[in-house]
Amino acid sequence: MTQPRSSDQYRRLRVALLGAGAVGSQVADLLLRHGDELADRAGASLELAGIAVRDVDAKRDVELPAELFTTDAESLIVGSDIVIELMGGIEPAKGNLLLALNSGADVVTANKALLATHGTELFEAADQVGASVYYEAAAAGAIPIIRPLRDSLAGDRVVRIMGIVNGTTNYILDRMDTEGADFAEVLADAQRLGYAEADPTADVEGYDAAQKAAILASLAFHTTVPLDAVHREGITSITPSMIEEARAAGFVIKLLAVCERITVDGSESISVRVYPALVSRTHPLASVHGANNAVFVEAEAAGSLMFYGAGAGGVQTASAVLGDVVSAARRHIAGGVGVGESTRANLPTVPIGHVITRYQITLEVDDQPGVLAAVASTLSEGGVSVATVVQTVDDPSTGSGTESSAPADGSGTARLIIGTHRAAEQALSDTVEALAASDVVERVVSVLRVEGE
Amino acid sequence: MTQPRSSDQYRRLRVALLGAGAVGSQVADLLLRHGDELADRAGASLELAGIAVRDVDAKRDVELPAELFTTDAESLIVGSDIVIELMGGIEPAKGNLLLALNSGADVVTANKALLATHGTELFEAADQVGASVYYEAAAAGAIPIIRPLRDSLAGDRVVRIMGIVNGTTNYILDRMDTEGADFAEVLADAQRLGYAEADPTADVEGYDAAQKAAILASLAFHTTVPLDAVHREGITSITPSMIEEARAAGFVIKLLAVCERITVDGSESISVRVYPALVSRTHPLASVHGANNAVFVEAEAAGSLMFYGAGAGGVQTASAVLGDVVSAARRHIAGGVGVGESTRANLPTVPIGHVITRYQITLEVDDQPGVLAAVASTLSEGGVSVATVVQTVDDPSTGSGTESSAPADGSGTARLIIGTHRAAEQALSDTVEALAASDVVERVVSVLRVEGE
Repeated sequence: MTQPRSSDQYRRLRVALLGAGAVGSQVADLLLRHGDELADRAGASLELAGIAVRDVDAKRDVELPAELFTTDAESLIVGSDIVIELMGGIEPAKGNLLLALNSGADVVTANKALLATHGTELFEAADQVGASVYYEAAAAGAIPIIRPLRDSLAGDRVVRIMGIVNGTTNYILDRMDTEGADFAEVLADAQRLGYAEADPTADVEGYDAAQKAAILASLAFHTTVPLDAVHREGITSITPSMIEEARAAGFVIKLLAVCERITVDGSESISVRVYPALVSRTHPLASVHGANNAVFVEAEAAGSLMFYGAGAGGVQTASAVLGDVVSAARRHIAGGVGVGESTRANLPTVPIGHVITRYQITLEVDDQPGVLAAVASTLSEGGVSVATVVQTVDDPSTGSGTESSAPADGSGTARLIIGTHRAAEQALSDTVEALAASDVVERVVSVLRVEGE
Repeated sequence: MTQPRSSDQYRRLRVALLGAGAVGSQVADLLLRHGDELADRAGASLELAGIAVRDVDAKRDVELPAELFTTDAESLIVGSDIVIELMGGIEPAKGNLLLALNSGADVVTANKALLATHGTELFEAADQVGASVYYEAAAAGAIPIIRPLRDSLAGDRVVRIMGIVNGTTNYILDRMDTEGADFAEVLADAQRLGYAEADPTADVEGYDAAQKAAILASLAFHTTVPLDAVHREGITSITPSMIEEARAAGFVIKLLAVCERITVDGSESISVRVYPALVSRTHPLASVHGANNAVFVEAEAAGSLMFYGAGAGGVQTASAVLGDVVSAARRHIAGGVGVGESTRANLPTVPIGHVITRYQITLEVDDQPGVLAAVASTLSEGGVSVATVVQTVDDPSTGSGTESSAPADGSGTARLIIGTHRAAEQALSDTVEALAASDVVERVVSVLRVEGE
């Protein structure tokens, strides 16, 4: 019953692929295997003209025709209709994409580092020639989030995005949560299993998530958000006991990218930040396990939306890249200029100090009468109001505390777990500093923000 | 720091709105209140030229300028650049949209009934003039699902969609599940609260979900799926004891729209069906509560994705409509022809009998020796293999059974809950008929399919 397919009936578009790593080799494979099907959907025949790589003899994840490989990216780019950049890094990726745009090609990229640092330059170059930059794969892997933010929610006002956008850190935190394992142990395991790089800094210190946060915030708030405006904290200081305490209070710890519309001094602004935060176990984001990603979006009219799926992986990310290739091909066939970026709102990004949030603070204190009063008075002087206090007595044999409502007996140390009410971040962090300097506080064990309430 | 905004700097586009019900009045309100912001995003000034309604004096959800209202839809349509149809029903909606397309306008509609029955006609009319039909609001309300399927996944192969796409039935089933209430009781409550219509047939009999299933399947499989190819069953026969039994087996009952790529006699086909099904409580769809919607998509490369949010509601749906209006405006500014529908795969839709699924069958049987053997032999003759059997003895005082592993004593009736292995639907339903006709079976209490395993 199916019609005979023939890509011959379509206009042929030359597709150049730059890079043949985990994602690139899958993109090439799918382009070659599903050519007829993709042609029917795009209304154009997608001819893989070549694959530019540094080393044509390197081993690839998928076997591909040797004659497609070249080290001469520039010759491949010139004369192509669609250029897919999956090399990563800033240069030569950026130069190649600018060359592609100036040669009249539409470009598809998954390069979050490049977009977060030089996106404006690329978008402007595309604008000048009426081409488009597609980058669905640059944030949250296979999860369609770019089009929903750019198009579906273009008539709405996004209030807040909370995203689990880094699979490695979610994998690590999830295993720490389910197994009680410690960070170093799970990281080593993740490296063995290929979930984390040999140098895990980009993931565990939140750099990767910060790049994605800048991309998502730019789209959501129609504003260019520079990467250095993103506040960033990683997960290396998260301990099993922090996860244990979080659980006891009904929370799970997730590395979140938070993009928020806030009003500061009466004017509309945005805050973009990445940090490990406490999320209620009843929040939809709490049930995002393993290396999965999810983006939770709150908009004025649409209400709460969530987008969930694989955040990484070669073939998964290749799906997002190929969706962009089909879109680019359709635009080539349809004619007209590409739709440019929408950054006219141009809202200022404010420093973290202006953000309204609430803290969960764990202190190690002298176990003697009057300590709680002293701590409470420091909090009150800092303008921070207390919502909950739990006191536990440290058991030195296990290093973990047991909950206690008995009066302190002056014989050692105790833990105070203080949940504050919402306050400005600056007041909260100043108060934590004051607590750290206080005579009765032996140690500030941990400070975590609560999100998603 | 924000730039001064001025919609005067943009080309003006005339927007006509047809219908001012729950969604339409919110769309008009947002267009009027956020005009400058929308202009910045669209690159065009969106001028609400008028609102066509049957009765200009009817009470609206939102107060709107009286001078915008007209009963003359045709005059409003001619000369408009974008026409938003939110009247519902087939005529005059269809005639109005065809007039709009033939007058050179792009059209935005949330009319699932019209799209599911006359979509092809609209898309062809749009194709002929190079215009576009936008309909993000027609399936799953505010949840962006149309663009992800049409664009983001255009380079992938969707294997299966399982959607909770009707908020009313999810609200009813969720309350039955959490409160143990019966269908009629919760339906009456839902009607009082405005979650269900006075005539609830379209929702509870699955007609609304079937329309959305046809739309989603058409997009996902690049195939025109006619509404009458969708197998449809409603939820009116779901009882509290079925929900109770489902819970005991680790399931929750959800009304699902299932769109599936299947191979029949060696050739690729699709199945589209709507019915109440058992879903494991660990499946992401199980935690979709209240009137929310969610669409779970499995694709060959992307893996599992889920899209979650509000499936209905005036202002929520208005968000999706306005996203489409901004997209239409951008296309007007960019030039070129609209991107047509992709239906070249043209896969046949097969009847439900070909589907491979598995059943959970509850039987009322004579409580005497040999019954299980007789039932097992009927199943085996039908080619249906048994995965689990639970026998309970009916307690006539409560009407519910208690689990029993004791041998039947011949003194009354017992229940057999049989979970089958996967088999062709035809074999399963034939076997249920044979069971119903069997001497030892007093009554087939319920038959439910299991999905999402």
